[in-house]
Amino acid sequence: MNRNVLMTVEYDGSAFHGWQVQPGVRTVQDVLGQALSRVCGGEIKLNGASRTDEGVHALGQAVSFAGDFGIPTERIPRAVNNLIEDARVLAATDVPEGFHARFDARGKAYLYRIAASPEPDIFLRNYRYLLNESPDKSKMEEAAKRLVGTYDFSAFRTKGGAGENDTVRTITAIGISQRNAEDTKGGTVRETEVRVVGVGFMYNMVRIIVGTLVEVGLGSREPGSVTAALESRDRANAGHTAPAGGLYLERVYY
Amino acid sequence: MNRNVLMTVEYDGSAFHGWQVQPGVRTVQDVLGQALSRVCGGEIKLNGASRTDEGVHALGQAVSFAGDFGIPTERIPRAVNNLIEDARVLAATDVPEGFHARFDARGKAYLYRIAASPEPDIFLRNYRYLLNESPDKSKMEEAAKRLVGTYDFSAFRTKGGAGENDTVRTITAIGISQRNAEDTKGGTVRETEVRVVGVGFMYNMVRIIVGTLVEVGLGSREPGSVTAALESRDRANAGHTAPAGGLYLERVYY
Repeated sequence: MNRNVLMTVEYDGSAFHGWQVQPGVRTVQDVLGQALSRVCGGEIKLNGASRTDEGVHALGQAVSFAGDFGIPTERIPRAVNNLIEDARVLAATDVPEGFHARFDARGKAYLYRIAASPEPDIFLRNYRYLLNESPDKSKMEEAAKRLVGTYDFSAFRTKGGAGENDTVRTITAIGISQRNAEDTKGGTVRETEVRVVGVGFMYNMVRIIVGTLVEVGLGSREPGSVTAALESRDRANAGHTAPAGGLYLERVYY
Repeated sequence: MNRNVLMTVEYDGSAFHGWQVQPGVRTVQDVLGQALSRVCGGEIKLNGASRTDEGVHALGQAVSFAGDFGIPTERIPRAVNNLIEDARVLAATDVPEGFHARFDARGKAYLYRIAASPEPDIFLRNYRYLLNESPDKSKMEEAAKRLVGTYDFSAFRTKGGAGENDTVRTITAIGISQRNAEDTKGGTVRETEVRVVGVGFMYNMVRIIVGTLVEVGLGSREPGSVTAALESRDRANAGHTAPAGGLYLERVYY
């Protein structure tokens, strides 16, 4: 009997060339698909809610697949996790026929992690955006609230993403928190976490939002410039694209 | 005028095939040597105090080199660090002619990091030995003190290291500490740190010592079995080799 399964998956993106299968490189879709095909005893095609880029991590990617296979759904996580070192299936549940992880997603939450210290902690380079000084939280918040809502986010994307003829998107919340944390050598780093929740995102949109907020937080641009960038619909008026390694797909909403 | 320079270097070993130059792979000696050759304007040959293995990290590797070059010694760290992402020169000082980072080393300190949690934190897999349960500290200490002193450590090495005809070594201290730390997802992991200080070490010696102490700490062998293993001089009687990613060369003593 055909079954449809939804999995929650985490992965360390640093050794993957992103989510999507590409010839000749190691991708999450490929590695996870091969493991599931072994576990299920037949070729499995995976649908991921988000096509995360090279170096981007996931704490809660959503992945669905359908097929006729013997293994009970609740045994899938352990069976798959025995086969992969840097990705893990956290949960698997049966979902109704026709459910699709990407098309049925109602929203996503991304977490972006920044670590500031006078000397960079090279052991964190694939997992944080390393800055020398900590960005100002209230300035970042002042800029962030200008991006919450439904707008044409043309200025905050890299052209080239699939299905992005319509450039209007809705961001429902941007939350910023800061705290002191310990670095690899027992020193202190100032961590800034930016959480961006929205209905859908375009290519590099979260990373450009974060890059822009970082520039505001470091004082190299004014919070108001974010509204000007948004209204201009011109990528040149937004900030830089923050590095991939700081980005984590945290949750997909259905 | 010929100068001799000693540097303190840290590196994240996860993207290096160890310290020593080998054809066709990326090693620290090679990458750091090429960067220094550019900075110094001539080919530089590096002497590292420890030939760390693939995946092993350094917080304080000692590296010396000699040559006739223009750049002032104090400017070397910044110039080199601009060229490499996952290794850093922390300090550089002039040393007397003939000083050699490896031959003149009087001792070394290694740090070994273990993180225990019911579910593995895949983001730490290259930086900690991931266990499901925390090893017992007092049992580990009971075993560790049996290894402090001057012994034939034949049972605690992998054969094949260079210059290991004499298998007597002196361990001056083994310290074990435990504490709670935060994992990538805001959960708690129990961290165990094992610090091994000695005059010199053989191939895989620290990792076999730690693997053996972990087995004692998890209750699968008795503390006293460590003395029996030592006296047997037989590798089969010691524990497993702990993974490379948990090991950090912390300091070299002169």
